[in-house]
Amino acid sequence: MHPRALRDTPVGSVLLTNGDIDHIAGLLSLREQTPFQMFATGEIHKVLADNRIFDAVNREVVPRVTVALDQPFELLPGLTAKLFAVPGKVPLFMEGTEVQTDLEGEQTVGVRLSDGAKTAYYIPGCATVTDKLLDQIADADQLFFDGTLWDDNEMIRTGTGVKTGRRMGHIPISGPDGSIVRLSGLKAAKTFIHINNTNPIWQPDSLERAFVTGNGWQIAADGQETEI
Amino acid sequence: MHPRALRDTPVGSVLLTNGDIDHIAGLLSLREQTPFQMFATGEIHKVLADNRIFDAVNREVVPRVTVALDQPFELLPGLTAKLFAVPGKVPLFMEGTEVQTDLEGEQTVGVRLSDGAKTAYYIPGCATVTDKLLDQIADADQLFFDGTLWDDNEMIRTGTGVKTGRRMGHIPISGPDGSIVRLSGLKAAKTFIHINNTNPIWQPDSLERAFVTGNGWQIAADGQETEI
Repeated sequence: MHPRALRDTPVGSVLLTNGDIDHIAGLLSLREQTPFQMFATGEIHKVLADNRIFDAVNREVVPRVTVALDQPFELLPGLTAKLFAVPGKVPLFMEGTEVQTDLEGEQTVGVRLSDGAKTAYYIPGCATVTDKLLDQIADADQLFFDGTLWDDNEMIRTGTGVKTGRRMGHIPISGPDGSIVRLSGLKAAKTFIHINNTNPIWQPDSLERAFVTGNGWQIAADGQETEI
Repeated sequence: MHPRALRDTPVGSVLLTNGDIDHIAGLLSLREQTPFQMFATGEIHKVLADNRIFDAVNREVVPRVTVALDQPFELLPGLTAKLFAVPGKVPLFMEGTEVQTDLEGEQTVGVRLSDGAKTAYYIPGCATVTDKLLDQIADADQLFFDGTLWDDNEMIRTGTGVKTGRRMGHIPISGPDGSIVRLSGLKAAKTFIHINNTNPIWQPDSLERAFVTGNGWQIAADGQETEI
């Protein structure tokens, strides 16, 4: 981390795992000439390059570092990261008429984070838990995982959208193919993140929340800190 | 205004007066399929069109209406608006190596708002108060005006930037060419808006604030409502 200064922030590095608005729009609030390093895949950097508004994040102050999939790199001193493909899709604003929702490439990635002693995985968007993904994250001490929706029809049922969760690139929590069942064999501590405001697990007294916590999952909250 | 509905907002129309981040990034928070009309000049619409991230603001739900300079149009039922050129510049992220800071065109505009009885002007960015501008706003009952900086060297003096105010397209409040002196002949009620966080008029007990209010200006605050 760099020294404290006027208009400084505690942000040393930014790692983008997706090119959609909820992952990149925050950069526009970090544009006041504060130095940090910005890591992303080539495809995600291309989204930024194709939208000139992100030129406000000055490349001379904020170096844009392209990282390859499956290649470890130093995210911060003492913290190694590695990106890997996760089933997903291109950003909403780049969708064409046909959308592949189980694309595995540089558009949607998960992150392996390790300090050499403990290992955490951060996967905020995932359309389906494949056997390949289960192998990838088998060594997790802590998993932060996509908790967008409780069930696949949630947006439609609540009148807040017209798409299923899987169409949006998000596996539901519940059901036989849902994340709880698919990830039940993992020995890691598990925390749902990226939770939509339609998700009933937000309700303190809901059966859904009780089911999630009863299955050993934590439900993340703003400002939460997790010790691993 | 349209009827209340799930995930509705009270926003009926959005009028963009500039294509820079502080004027357009908020659109990315209004993207949840909520209908409103979006008005702007052709040049400002071009900034949005050139940045695909704004495709998330669905054109089928949010019509993009191009308005010509100096042509009145209905912004909301009973409220007529008119855009006019104000000295300014292109957005920061579109600056080339040479920057014209007193450009008068479609990139930076002021707004005349009238319900037929009273007239307000909204001018959040203005590099210099020309005689033409004074003529334009002579019939104002209320003026909301660019109060970004107290003096031209403020960003440099406070170590928060390397550019003068005029280089950023903002006339200072103070000085013989500043906005208070230049606008002193106007009969309108006057309010400073778009005030930078370096501006000493924010300090409750500052001499600068006393000077501003002593000259009959109001200093806007978040959530303020003004009756005209």
